[in-house]
Amino acid sequence: MPRSYRVAILGATGAVGTELLDLLASRNFPIADLKLLASPRSAGCQLSFQGECLPVEVVTEQSFDQVDLVLASAGASTSRLWAAKAVAAGAVVIDNSSAFRLNPEVPLVVPEVNPQAAATHEGIIANPNCTTILLSLAVWPLHRVQPIQRLVVATYQSASGAGARAMEELKNQAQAILQGEAPQSEIFPYPLAFNLFPHNSQLNDQGYCEEELKMVNETRKIFATPNLRVTATCVRVPVLRAHSEAINLEFSQPFAVEKARSILSQAPGIKLVEDWQANYFPMPMEASGQDAVLVGRIRQDISHACGLELWLSGDQIRKGAALNAVQIAELLVTQSWLRPAVTLAR
Amino acid sequence: MPRSYRVAILGATGAVGTELLDLLASRNFPIADLKLLASPRSAGCQLSFQGECLPVEVVTEQSFDQVDLVLASAGASTSRLWAAKAVAAGAVVIDNSSAFRLNPEVPLVVPEVNPQAAATHEGIIANPNCTTILLSLAVWPLHRVQPIQRLVVATYQSASGAGARAMEELKNQAQAILQGEAPQSEIFPYPLAFNLFPHNSQLNDQGYCEEELKMVNETRKIFATPNLRVTATCVRVPVLRAHSEAINLEFSQPFAVEKARSILSQAPGIKLVEDWQANYFPMPMEASGQDAVLVGRIRQDISHACGLELWLSGDQIRKGAALNAVQIAELLVTQSWLRPAVTLAR
Repeated sequence: MPRSYRVAILGATGAVGTELLDLLASRNFPIADLKLLASPRSAGCQLSFQGECLPVEVVTEQSFDQVDLVLASAGASTSRLWAAKAVAAGAVVIDNSSAFRLNPEVPLVVPEVNPQAAATHEGIIANPNCTTILLSLAVWPLHRVQPIQRLVVATYQSASGAGARAMEELKNQAQAILQGEAPQSEIFPYPLAFNLFPHNSQLNDQGYCEEELKMVNETRKIFATPNLRVTATCVRVPVLRAHSEAINLEFSQPFAVEKARSILSQAPGIKLVEDWQANYFPMPMEASGQDAVLVGRIRQDISHACGLELWLSGDQIRKGAALNAVQIAELLVTQSWLRPAVTLAR
Repeated sequence: MPRSYRVAILGATGAVGTELLDLLASRNFPIADLKLLASPRSAGCQLSFQGECLPVEVVTEQSFDQVDLVLASAGASTSRLWAAKAVAAGAVVIDNSSAFRLNPEVPLVVPEVNPQAAATHEGIIANPNCTTILLSLAVWPLHRVQPIQRLVVATYQSASGAGARAMEELKNQAQAILQGEAPQSEIFPYPLAFNLFPHNSQLNDQGYCEEELKMVNETRKIFATPNLRVTATCVRVPVLRAHSEAINLEFSQPFAVEKARSILSQAPGIKLVEDWQANYFPMPMEASGQDAVLVGRIRQDISHACGLELWLSGDQIRKGAALNAVQIAELLVTQSWLRPAVTLAR
């Protein structure tokens, strides 16, 4: 009889937490016991899992006793506070925050790209940022055939990237504007409805925002190509869910469009969406709720003999966050890599 | 006493036509007589100009008699039908359609970039496409100092680019979605509200859409740099008015950010919008209704030693169409270039 596991979700009531619950159920993850953890603000709620009502508990020092696997999705400061404690208690943590992603001792894993990295974990495995996961799924299959020299990306990021409340804010703003009223902004610094603005994460001295640097640094780490040349412009757009990306790729040799199309049509996690007659390509409306990242508009770049252009839309709560984390958990189980750090020979 | 001119607007009732009327009034263009022309569908309307109600007439063979200047904004097929007749009747045509833009005998003019090209007209002067005008205003001041080697652009184009009815469609779709109803699409092929999609203009065999090729070919012509390497990804976003662009520039030598910022802060037609502390940069909401194109987020590209990144938002009905046309008209008047083609020595 296959083993089943004691799982805890840290940040169970957020947009990603809710999706984690759905995915664990729909993918029949082998669960012996499920513990829902959250901050005091959310504790006391009940969430439904496979027909059962489970209480949401406040996370405490004792929360991780008798837990094999923690799926953490409550932000970087919460992960910094609790991940080491969970590991010390014998759990393996799959962390969806940015807290450990660039820590050289923590693997950063997209199961379709670098599954073997997960084998090296010492208790914590990091889940990449949403825009990075979508990008890496689309370009890794090409990069492994012919190394990419440079990536220029522009993103079109939905409100859901800032959580469930941001999606509500976008809808409320749209309603206000349609009624001729002034839109109110609390989550976002500026109105997003019928507007857009560069991503509102912190800027560094070079003028890159955190979101852009995540794309640069995380892609390098996942691809194990520390010098990969990447630049990004990240933009919030008034879309509810699913991010899109315009991707310009430079190779050192020409990369035939037909070859790229053939490779991507067979790549895992991707669905090729291209109807050139109907001008039909990936759209966030259609990517929402889908496991697959929609990729299309593969073109030879007319400005560069060794360039390709790609376009994608992907559900950043699903493959961009929750699904990737559950896939890592499945990988640990199937490969028998779900051993707690305390059993590692150090 | 300065001369004044007999002006006709062809396509007076459209989004750009209405804006042309506003601008001719607010900029005190020296008008002796103003004729509003449109298709039979719109004729019979009355439009207000400087407190007067002017009738909209159906365009006929006689419409251009006694007219010095025609501002045409009724689409390429209408311009192809009437422009030569207007020129034969002695008028100069400033054409906002794509009909003549790439015709080598027709100058394509952005007054801040290549005013001298207007002097060579033989009756028709073309107004560039909106995305091209915005792009050229922002990058020409840098290109003239240090030639650009390659441009990689991604656009974020508002509904207004498809006209006033498209703006209504976006609002109606948003209202439907907020009420839980299915959005209806007539102008656009897919719902635009809370969604986005690659620009729905016709695709060529290489996979570039017309809108993207306009950016490539028109920028080359305006800059008189036929081999300029340009690639673009054009995307419709659920914004009512004003387009935005993420622009990646490659030079053959490094271009210091401070130098670029200093140049752009003094460039005509541009307003530098950069508050790095507040993460405040150009937004379509703020660009709407403004003459100036808002430019900001000037960054050294971390993926290319000779690269720069720019971000802009500009009102594509105003500077992207009507204002540029009126500025061309002003240029013809102030430079005494408003001579009819029949007087040209051929």
